[in-house]
Amino acid sequence: MKNIIGEIKKLVLSSKTAIIASHIDPDGDTLGSMIGLAIILKRVGLDCVMYSQDGVPNTYKFLSHSDEVVNKAPKTEFDLLIAVDSSDISRIGEHKINAKKIINIDHHPDNTNFGDINFVELLSAVAEQIYHIAIEFGVKIDEEIAEALYVSIITDTGNFKYSNTLPSTFYVAGELVNAGANPFKLANQVYENQSVSSFKLLAKALESMEVVKNSKVAYSVITHQMIVDVQARGDDFVGIIDHLRSLKNVEVAVLFREEEREKYKINFRSKGSVNVSKIAKELGGGGHVKASGCIVSGRLEEVKNKVLNLLLPEIK
Amino acid sequence: MKNIIGEIKKLVLSSKTAIIASHIDPDGDTLGSMIGLAIILKRVGLDCVMYSQDGVPNTYKFLSHSDEVVNKAPKTEFDLLIAVDSSDISRIGEHKINAKKIINIDHHPDNTNFGDINFVELLSAVAEQIYHIAIEFGVKIDEEIAEALYVSIITDTGNFKYSNTLPSTFYVAGELVNAGANPFKLANQVYENQSVSSFKLLAKALESMEVVKNSKVAYSVITHQMIVDVQARGDDFVGIIDHLRSLKNVEVAVLFREEEREKYKINFRSKGSVNVSKIAKELGGGGHVKASGCIVSGRLEEVKNKVLNLLLPEIK
Repeated sequence: MKNIIGEIKKLVLSSKTAIIASHIDPDGDTLGSMIGLAIILKRVGLDCVMYSQDGVPNTYKFLSHSDEVVNKAPKTEFDLLIAVDSSDISRIGEHKINAKKIINIDHHPDNTNFGDINFVELLSAVAEQIYHIAIEFGVKIDEEIAEALYVSIITDTGNFKYSNTLPSTFYVAGELVNAGANPFKLANQVYENQSVSSFKLLAKALESMEVVKNSKVAYSVITHQMIVDVQARGDDFVGIIDHLRSLKNVEVAVLFREEEREKYKINFRSKGSVNVSKIAKELGGGGHVKASGCIVSGRLEEVKNKVLNLLLPEIK
Repeated sequence: MKNIIGEIKKLVLSSKTAIIASHIDPDGDTLGSMIGLAIILKRVGLDCVMYSQDGVPNTYKFLSHSDEVVNKAPKTEFDLLIAVDSSDISRIGEHKINAKKIINIDHHPDNTNFGDINFVELLSAVAEQIYHIAIEFGVKIDEEIAEALYVSIITDTGNFKYSNTLPSTFYVAGELVNAGANPFKLANQVYENQSVSSFKLLAKALESMEVVKNSKVAYSVITHQMIVDVQARGDDFVGIIDHLRSLKNVEVAVLFREEEREKYKINFRSKGSVNVSKIAKELGGGGHVKASGCIVSGRLEEVKNKVLNLLLPEIK
């Protein structure tokens, strides 16, 4: 890790301008890492632009400097394009950015090494890598950097609950708290900003919940009518599937959400050994071993049967 | 800290038997600390009994050695009584335990220093102190110790979300993960064992939710009929108030729960500056600044008015 950060340092110090890009549909890791890195690079004299094609979701607008993020890349030429948390360059969205060199900082195992320098490490969050860049550059981690990087870590680890939580994750988090990140305040900002409509939707999802196969599978249906009734917005669906997953003995949780009439978006979460990516793929979708999704058209009973007929034989 | 652990070491090494006591109505911190400490002391040759007057709740029965915890203290004389996580000796329940010396290991600011040795530090969890005892004794932290202490830390910090989460908390957690504690598995064990009835109850609580005073106060009512309908048990109420608290802009969350006909148990949670202990006290209850409770008798409308008339003027 030290060598590659040395290379990055050399290239950065011989550059004047940089555009740092987060990925489309941005999450806390890509945004926090981008903001943290921008502050660090400005401190060593770089002229930095932060670019997120899809802007900054409300949840993360409390972060310092998030209002400086642009959603249109300037047409000027940059010395550096730095992509953070993107496994492929296409993940940053519009990629006609004019830059002499590309630095690729990521933690996804399927990263395509698209940069002139590729700093790819399988850590919990890109924030861990940005932390080490700050150390190497000798930039003091202040409260602004600490908050941005701490938010990155908690969003990508489910606040230290996912299996990507490593000893190094705790080490870095401790240093960030030491530098001014406040765990209570930041967890509050990220997790305790639920809307009334999200609560009403959760209530409906929990009421419609069914458990089958010795309680190893739990599923809920959110109909279009429910969405209309509670006036739900996009953010309101976040977290419902995790509730289903938290049920005792559940190995796979499934959420059916009627996006349009007779068209269902289906999310899967596995906490056991079932590979839900396989099931989503068979239905034309994709995802990871423990979290996947697909879209299936048809009447609700047909859609449910199709999914359960594929899923239930996988449960031991 | 080092001096006092030195004193503990001296006393332990000149002793043969010990009873380690957790507090009544035990939580993960007192149980995990007790189990972790018992393993450590057995390793240095002590004959140890673990005592919890109220036994071990189901949530924590997965911990190694939890089946060795007794809920009746033997009448024999012990060289040492070690109380963990108890601010006063009365917190261990039956305290006619016959012991030559008492060691008091706790992190509560109101600890009464009841021991012959008092190891009281305002850390996130007693587990942090037990960790340092293991280091001082030169006992290698294995997976069993690491799991017990990690569970202590996550239960007392709300999985690193409460304001008692310190840099040292992350440092110790990282070392425990390094020694074999699995964050994903342990968070699952502690937080992802919800019952179907708890979900149905949560759904009803969320549906009954009202927000007042510019969404700064959210409250829900759980009637006796709802409890009967979903066949709810004691554990099923845990966490409902935290959901209310997670609503955007909420400063105080209140849960009214009909325990008997026209008798309501009321819980308060504050995430802003309102001191809810003051309000609970005015109604004959008690608690902390950010978490308190009381019992009020009367018809629902009367009870609600009584509570809201006290609470709403406190909201700025």
